[in-house]
Amino acid sequence: MSQDSFKKHLLTAFNIQFNDESLLQEALTQRNYLNEHQEVSGRDYQRLEFLGDSVMQVSVAEYLFKRYPNWHEGQLTEMRIAMVQTRSFAHFSRVAHLNEGIRLGKGEEMSGARDRDSLLEDIWEAFIGALYLDQGLGAVCAFLDQTLFAAIDTDFFDRFIDFKSRLQEKLQKNGAVDIYYRTESEKPLAGNTQLFEASISVDERELARGTGKSIKDAEKAAARTALKLLEDK
Amino acid sequence: MSQDSFKKHLLTAFNIQFNDESLLQEALTQRNYLNEHQEVSGRDYQRLEFLGDSVMQVSVAEYLFKRYPNWHEGQLTEMRIAMVQTRSFAHFSRVAHLNEGIRLGKGEEMSGARDRDSLLEDIWEAFIGALYLDQGLGAVCAFLDQTLFAAIDTDFFDRFIDFKSRLQEKLQKNGAVDIYYRTESEKPLAGNTQLFEASISVDERELARGTGKSIKDAEKAAARTALKLLEDK
Repeated sequence: MSQDSFKKHLLTAFNIQFNDESLLQEALTQRNYLNEHQEVSGRDYQRLEFLGDSVMQVSVAEYLFKRYPNWHEGQLTEMRIAMVQTRSFAHFSRVAHLNEGIRLGKGEEMSGARDRDSLLEDIWEAFIGALYLDQGLGAVCAFLDQTLFAAIDTDFFDRFIDFKSRLQEKLQKNGAVDIYYRTESEKPLAGNTQLFEASISVDERELARGTGKSIKDAEKAAARTALKLLEDK
Repeated sequence: MSQDSFKKHLLTAFNIQFNDESLLQEALTQRNYLNEHQEVSGRDYQRLEFLGDSVMQVSVAEYLFKRYPNWHEGQLTEMRIAMVQTRSFAHFSRVAHLNEGIRLGKGEEMSGARDRDSLLEDIWEAFIGALYLDQGLGAVCAFLDQTLFAAIDTDFFDRFIDFKSRLQEKLQKNGAVDIYYRTESEKPLAGNTQLFEASISVDERELARGTGKSIKDAEKAAARTALKLLEDK
């Protein structure tokens, strides 16, 4: 994508228009590109990546703090760690098409760096750092509302959360209870895989069920559902 | 210190007055205090500590980013890590007299928790989190300007920085050079200690000298001075 097309994309998709376009350029510029283009001034993205790393931390922390007023700091920390995994940044770089705006060196382009997670993680942070400098934390949060924060209401971050421990902690808050997971059924699926159903019982009363492609996943899904039931009460 | 005296102290020393005083209360309240005072509503400081941790990260990152436009991300990261050491937070909690405002449980008070580093680190972060929610990042940075940031121009953070590696990196940027440290002198001091003087030479030309109570400290001081000379050029 040309730089002009990329700027249009940011405006159309996210209503973002940089006041200082050199910040956007810097966030999208890989070091070897500068080596190959001596006529281009400016820096590569690494200093902005340094800044964006912390901006991600505080944006996510404040979001969780306000969204979950009843979570204690252990739960908040677990979720923040899940959300600022650099591997999820690569995913959201693709979702937001940031990868298409990167100014790459030729060698990197040839070797497929434009789709490499490590670069996309860096670019995500650099872009966030540039947006923060240009427009402040409010603009960063508006962008995250459309990307990273929107994923909280899906199961995207579930893989990073230990729902079974969290449920146990909640259930045993006021003393020991007997928690029991049982595999209820096992069905063959296409492609040599299976679907398991697990139930979770507390003091011999069934609380919830869940399904998954392994017993572990099914139990995790049951714990997630049970937690949701308890929180909605 | 009573809560009223503490509020006056914040106003006099730092020109800080909370709009929402319950945030300040929360930041200064330890869990056992609430257990012992059932009539007092509110939470302990731990959620605010979670938030303040990230606020510290971004405040320090932005400060360094802007103050040192020529540092690369490795140098910025090293300095940020030095500055957000929780052990330095305990120091600055005492400097700002935050310890005197904590609402502690009786057992903790008896056991000397008010002067315990681990509590003072937590309280620092909680206070920063509360100030951020109440007045935003600008107010946090104004407070840090008078405390943590002011210490950058002293040697407070030097213990955390590897000046010898940093100097070596700078000197060898454009190819190998010969770097040589020599212990120039050793003088006895009071209390069975000694003062060492070390010099650093590059390609047989002396660049700087430094002193310290060990050879290692003297070399580090020499490297620090050499770096400063090179940066001022």
